[in-house]
Amino acid sequence: MDPERKESLRSHFRRVIFGTDTPSGKAFDVALLWAILISVALVMLESVPAIKDKYGWPLYIAELGFTALFSVEYALRLWVINKPLRYAFSFFGIVDLLSILPTYLSLILGGAHSLMVIRVLRLLRVFRVFKLVRYIQEAGMLGRAIAASRRKILVFLMAVMSITIIFGTVMYLVESPEAGFTSIPTSIYWAIVTLTTVGYGDIAPQTWFGQFLAAAIMILGYAMIAVPTGIVGVEISRAQDPGPECTSCHATGHLPDARFCRRCGAELPPWGASPAKEP
Amino acid sequence: MDPERKESLRSHFRRVIFGTDTPSGKAFDVALLWAILISVALVMLESVPAIKDKYGWPLYIAELGFTALFSVEYALRLWVINKPLRYAFSFFGIVDLLSILPTYLSLILGGAHSLMVIRVLRLLRVFRVFKLVRYIQEAGMLGRAIAASRRKILVFLMAVMSITIIFGTVMYLVESPEAGFTSIPTSIYWAIVTLTTVGYGDIAPQTWFGQFLAAAIMILGYAMIAVPTGIVGVEISRAQDPGPECTSCHATGHLPDARFCRRCGAELPPWGASPAKEP
Amino acid sequence: MDPERKESLRSHFRRVIFGTDTPSGKAFDVALLWAILISVALVMLESVPAIKDKYGWPLYIAELGFTALFSVEYALRLWVINKPLRYAFSFFGIVDLLSILPTYLSLILGGAHSLMVIRVLRLLRVFRVFKLVRYIQEAGMLGRAIAASRRKILVFLMAVMSITIIFGTVMYLVESPEAGFTSIPTSIYWAIVTLTTVGYGDIAPQTWFGQFLAAAIMILGYAMIAVPTGIVGVEISRAQDPGPECTSCHATGHLPDARFCRRCGAELPPWGASPAKEP
Amino acid sequence: MDPERKESLRSHFRRVIFGTDTPSGKAFDVALLWAILISVALVMLESVPAIKDKYGWPLYIAELGFTALFSVEYALRLWVINKPLRYAFSFFGIVDLLSILPTYLSLILGGAHSLMVIRVLRLLRVFRVFKLVRYIQEAGMLGRAIAASRRKILVFLMAVMSITIIFGTVMYLVESPEAGFTSIPTSIYWAIVTLTTVGYGDIAPQTWFGQFLAAAIMILGYAMIAVPTGIVGVEISRAQDPGPECTSCHATGHLPDARFCRRCGAELPPWGASPAKEP
Repeated sequence: MDPERKESLRSHFRRVIFGTDTPSGKAFDVALLWAILISVALVMLESVPAIKDKYGWPLYIAELGFTALFSVEYALRLWVINKPLRYAFSFFGIVDLLSILPTYLSLILGGAHSLMVIRVLRLLRVFRVFKLVRYIQEAGMLGRAIAASRRKILVFLMAVMSITIIFGTVMYLVESPEAGFTSIPTSIYWAIVTLTTVGYGDIAPQTWFGQFLAAAIMILGYAMIAVPTGIVGVEISRAQDPGPECTSCHATGHLPDARFCRRCGAELPPWGASPAKEP
Repeated sequence: MDPERKESLRSHFRRVIFGTDTPSGKAFDVALLWAILISVALVMLESVPAIKDKYGWPLYIAELGFTALFSVEYALRLWVINKPLRYAFSFFGIVDLLSILPTYLSLILGGAHSLMVIRVLRLLRVFRVFKLVRYIQEAGMLGRAIAASRRKILVFLMAVMSITIIFGTVMYLVESPEAGFTSIPTSIYWAIVTLTTVGYGDIAPQTWFGQFLAAAIMILGYAMIAVPTGIVGVEISRAQDPGPECTSCHATGHLPDARFCRRCGAELPPWGASPAKEP
Repeated sequence: MDPERKESLRSHFRRVIFGTDTPSGKAFDVALLWAILISVALVMLESVPAIKDKYGWPLYIAELGFTALFSVEYALRLWVINKPLRYAFSFFGIVDLLSILPTYLSLILGGAHSLMVIRVLRLLRVFRVFKLVRYIQEAGMLGRAIAASRRKILVFLMAVMSITIIFGTVMYLVESPEAGFTSIPTSIYWAIVTLTTVGYGDIAPQTWFGQFLAAAIMILGYAMIAVPTGIVGVEISRAQDPGPECTSCHATGHLPDARFCRRCGAELPPWGASPAKEP
Repeated sequence: MDPERKESLRSHFRRVIFGTDTPSGKAFDVALLWAILISVALVMLESVPAIKDKYGWPLYIAELGFTALFSVEYALRLWVINKPLRYAFSFFGIVDLLSILPTYLSLILGGAHSLMVIRVLRLLRVFRVFKLVRYIQEAGMLGRAIAASRRKILVFLMAVMSITIIFGTVMYLVESPEAGFTSIPTSIYWAIVTLTTVGYGDIAPQTWFGQFLAAAIMILGYAMIAVPTGIVGVEISRAQDPGPECTSCHATGHLPDARFCRRCGAELPPWGASPAKEP
C-alpha cells in the first residue's frame, strides 16, 4: 500500500472512530455502545451460577469475540491518532486497555483454572462501563455543578464523618456487643447506616439510651440531607447555560427561549452566539 | 328511532361522557371516579385469602356488575365519539378495554378454574387505576417540569446504573456468597437497595472492607439525592407561577424580575396584576 | 363577692390565661407548657412495664394531680372567656377537654380495672401534646407554604398511590406468598415501604424479576423525592415575609436588612411598616 | 535564659502554634492534623478485639506517645498565649485538655485494669476529632445558613416530635407487644425510625391497621423531608455567593438582580466584576 493511500485511509478511520458528525462516525459509536452494554451484561450473567453451568461455553465464546472486537478497536485507535502515547496514557486509553487485558491474562495464565486472581481479573471487564462516559455530554453540566461545590461538599463529608465517629464511639460504650456493636469501627458503620437513613437493621440498639441516641442521629440525618441538596441545587441552577448577555443593559440569565431582554426590552443576540462559558 | 333523534341523543351523551362543564357531565365523572375506586378496592380485597373465603360470592357478583357497567361505558364511548377507531387505539381506549376484558376472558376460559393465567388476567383489572389520569389536571405542571429535565434525569439514571454496576461487581469480589452476594446481578440489586437508602438488610456486608465500601456507597447515595432534587426543583420553580401574560403576544412564564416580554419585547403588566391562573 | 370585683377578677384572669404580653401571662404559659410536657412524659413512662411495676402508685397520684390542674385550667378558661360555647367547640376547647376526660372516665368506670377500653382512653391523654400548637407561632410560615402547595401535594400523593397500587399488584403476581407477598394490600404496603425508601426488610423480593421491579420502584422513589422538595421549596421561598415595597419603582423581595431599593436606589419604607401579608 | 530571649521565643512559638500564615505555622498545623487523625484511628483500632489481642502493646506505646505530644502542645499553648485562663476555659482549651486527660487518669487509676470506667474514659480520646473544627473554615457559610433558619428548624423538630408521639401512642394501642411495640417510648422510637425513612425492621407492624398507619407515617416522612430542604436551601442560596461589594459602604450579599446597594443606595459594580472571594 502506497503511503498516500495509507494516510488517506488513516484519516478516514480517524473520522469514523473519533468523530461523531458523519453518518459512519455515528454508526460506529452506536455499534460500540451496544457492544459495551452487551459485554457488560455477559460479565454479569456469567457470575450467576445457574447460568454459568448451563451456558458457560457460549458465554466464553462471546467473551473471546468481544475481546477481539475491543482489541481491534484499541489497535485502530492507536494507529489513527496523531499522538498515540498521549492517548494510551489518557483516561480512555487506560479504560480501553483494561477492557481487553483481563481476558488475555486469563488466557496466558489459563493452565490453573481455579486461580481466584484470574476470576477477579476477568470481572474487571465490568469497568468497560466507563467507556460509556464518552457518550454522556449532558454530564458536563452536572459535573460543573458538583465541581463548583467541591469544597462545601468536602466540609459536609467531614461533618458527616465527625458526627458518625462521635456517635459511633458513644454507642459502642452504651450498647453491648450482643446488639452488634462489637467495636468502634463497626459502631461507626452503624452510625453511617443510620445517618444516611439506609437502616439495614442487622445492627440495632437495644437499650433505651441507645435508642434515644439512635433517634437523635436519625433526625439529624433526616434534616442534614437538606445541606447537600441546598448546596448542589444552588450550583445546578447556576450551572445552567447563562446564555446571551443583553448588548444594551448587560443583563444575563435570560430564559432559553428569550429573544428580547427582560430588563430593557432590547433584542438579544442569538443563544449560543455570545462567547459561551461552557468549554 | 328516527336518525335525527338518535343524533341528538348521541350528541347529548357525548356532552355527558366526554364533557366536564355541564352538571350532568360532572355527575357522570364523579360517579365513574367512585366506580373505579371501588372496583380497584374490590380487586385488592379479593386477593386477601381470609376475605375471599368469607365474601367470595358477593365479590364475584360485584365484579360482574362493575364489568357490565364499564362495558356499557366503553360501548357508549365508542358510539358517541366521532372517530371511534382513533379512540379505541388511544391510551384511554386501551385502558378502558383492558378494564373489562379480563373478566370476560375468565368467563370464557372459566371451565378450568385453577388456571393461574386467569387469576393473573383478572388482577389486571387493577390497571383501572389508570382511568384516573383523566381527572388529574394538576399533573400537567409536574409533567412539564419533569419533561423539561428529561435529559438530565436520564444522565442521572445512567450515573446511578454505572455506580451500582461498579460497586456491585466489587462487592461480589469482596464479600462471600454466605452474606447474600451470590452473583453480580444480586450484588447490583444490593447496591441499588443501598444507594437509594432503602436498606432492606436481607443482604448486608460482613467483612470490614465490604462495610467500608458499603459506607462509601451510602454516603454517595445520601449526597446524590441532591442531584434530582436540584434538577427538578429548578424546573418546578420555573413551571410554577406563570406570572403576568404579555398583553401584546400573550407569552407567559417570564422570570420574576422581567419587565419586558422575552418574546416580543413589549412591556409586561406588573407581576401579580394579571388574573392568576391558580384557583 | 360583689359582681364588679368578680368582673375585674375575671378580666384579670383572662389577661393571664389568654394573653401573652404581660409578665404573669407569660409565666402562666411557661408553667402550662411544662405541665403539658411532664404529663405527656408520664403517660409514656406509665406504658413501660418495668416502670409501671415499680412506680405505678406515684405515677397514678401525679396523673390525678395533672388532671386536677388541667380541670381547673379548663374551668377557668370557660369562666373568663366571653363566648364559652364557642371556645368549648373550638379546636383548643376540644383538646383541653380531651386531656382531662380520659382520667375521669377511668375513675367512673374504675370498677373493672382490666377493661382494655379504659387503658386506651387514658392513653388518649397523650393528645395533650396538641396543646403545644398554641405556642408555635413560627408554624404559620411553614403552614402557609404547605397550604399554598395543597393541590400539588394532593396530585403527588395520588401519583404515589397509583404507582404503589400498580407495583404492588404486579409484585403479588411475580413473587410468592413465602417471600411475604400474601395479598395485594400487603404487596402495596411493601411498595410504599420501598418507594419511600424506608425498607424494613420483613417483606423482600426473592426472584430475579421481583428484585428487578423492586430496583425500579426504589430508583423511582429516590428520584421522586425531588418533587415534594421542589414544590415545597418554591412555596417556602415565596412564603418568606415579602417585606416593604419600594415607593419609587414598586420592586419587592428585598433582603431583610435592606434600607435602599436594589433596583432604583431609593430609600425603602421600614420593614414591617408596609401592610404585611402575614396575618 | 534571659527574659528578653524568652519573650522572643514565646512570641515565635505563638506565631507557629496559633498563626497559619507563616510556613512554619502551616507545617505545625498540618503535623497536628495528622497526629489527630492517626490518634483517633488508633483509638478505633484498639476497640477491635482481634487487633487489640495482636497489637495491644504497640498501640499502648503509640497512645503514650500521642498523649505526650498533645501534652506538650497543650502546655505550649498555655505558655505562649497572652490570656492563658481564657484559653483554658474556651471550647478548644477544654477539647485540648480532654484529649490528654483520659490517658493520665487511666495511668493513675491503673492498678485495676479491668475497671470499665477507665475504658470509657480512654475512649473519650475520640473527641480529639473536635480539634479538627479549627481547620474547617468553609464551615462558616454552612453554619450561617443553619443559624439563619434556627427557629424554623426548631419548629420543624417540634412537629416531628409531636407526630412521632401521636403515631407512637396510637401504634402502641393498635399493635401487640409481640410485634415489638412493648411500650410507648419504644413505639415512638419506631415512629422516628419510620418517619425518617431509616426503617430498621426490628420493630414492624403486623396487623392491617398498623400497616395502614405505618404507610401513612412513611408517606408523611417522605414528603416532609421537603421542609428542611426548602428552609435550608433558601438560606444556603442566600449565604452562598457574596457577589459584588458596595464600593461605598463595602456591604456584600446583595441579591443577584441588585443594581443599587441595599445599605447605602450607591450603585453597585456589575455582578462578577469584583474579585470573587471563592478560591
